Amino acid sequence: MINLTQLVLASHNAGKLKELQAMLGESVQLRSVGEFSSVEPEETGLSFVENAILKARNASRLSGLPALADDSGLAVDFLGGAPGIYSARYAEGQGDAANNAKLLDVLKDVPEAERGAQFVCVLALVRHADDPLPILCEGLWYGRILPAASGEHGFGYDPLFWVPERNCSSAELSPAEKNQLSHRARAMVLLRQRLGLK
Amino acid sequence: MINLTQLVLASHNAGKLKELQAMLGESVQLRSVGEFSSVEPEETGLSFVENAILKARNASRLSGLPALADDSGLAVDFLGGAPGIYSARYAEGQGDAANNAKLLDVLKDVPEAERGAQFVCVLALVRHADDPLPILCEGLWYGRILPAASGEHGFGYDPLFWVPERNCSSAELSPAEKNQLSHRARAMVLLRQRLGLK
Repeated sequence: MINLTQLVLASHNAGKLKELQAMLGESVQLRSVGEFSSVEPEETGLSFVENAILKARNASRLSGLPALADDSGLAVDFLGGAPGIYSARYAEGQGDAANNAKLLDVLKDVPEAERGAQFVCVLALVRHADDPLPILCEGLWYGRILPAASGEHGFGYDPLFWVPERNCSSAELSPAEKNQLSHRARAMVLLRQRLGLK
Repeated sequence: MINLTQLVLASHNAGKLKELQAMLGESVQLRSVGEFSSVEPEETGLSFVENAILKARNASRLSGLPALADDSGLAVDFLGGAPGIYSARYAEGQGDAANNAKLLDVLKDVPEAERGAQFVCVLALVRHADDPLPILCEGLWYGRILPAASGEHGFGYDPLFWVPERNCSSAELSPAEKNQLSHRARAMVLLRQRLGLK
């Protein structure tokens, strides 16, 4: 068991910090790695877990504090797990709408039964930069890629991701519902258990 | 779910192949990476999981087949997780007896309550060398480091590892008992679940 009061989040995104802080609870204070450096590490890994560990080690090295990193994305079965770690830059950095349009186009002739996909979130926590035992928690959210976008909430691939347990797209869920079901929520439940929180 | 009939094990150790084959069951045939190359990759990771992924990717690259790697060792709480990934070479390659003697010496003034330790096993399975979604399964076996060696079975740090649920050292367990309780057995149970085996 690790006792923590502060944890540096390996992200410069204030929205992600707020969301993860809410999921983590108040007993651990999350701080942004942006307080310590504006340089972001190159994500050279081939998988979520490799990139999450790499980002966590980097944030801990910069801050001298325990660090948490999140790496996440969409893995489509028919595409062998793509776009995966390249989810955010699938359409070469043109943003969410272009990413979604590209995915719909790539899958346009693929029947429903073969459109299975999963959102993946890996959380990595290191006590120090060279920690030999990073805590790793993976959350998977199984669904299917819709033939067209639907819904206005969320971000990224949410409008294309059919959620079987709610019979709607992930972008049709309220933020509160999504934060109960999502890959990130599932990973965070496991992390809270590993840290002995509540 | 991944359907496999063959899997290359990233190890040149025939004993480990036999043990893992027995734990995995007969529906998947384990082959040694030694069939494809005698060169072993440098383990440059800082943790079990990084080294397991690295070895699995290497074995898959050499064989062109899905590959499984095991990385494991002993993490002592008082030593911040050491010897960890360096478990097998703790006493600079002088072998099990020297490793055990060094650990006893390092902990000689540490009271029982602070001698907690865990055996860690991480299994990594990749479908291909660049697999964006390696399957990772971790098995932990909690115990305590004894003040002196006890027992004749097993190998490595087994004579020093007190198993609370059996009131004996890990080297006093029969091989069959150890293979029910060990970190490797626990990781393999998780892997079998992930692969949908039995």
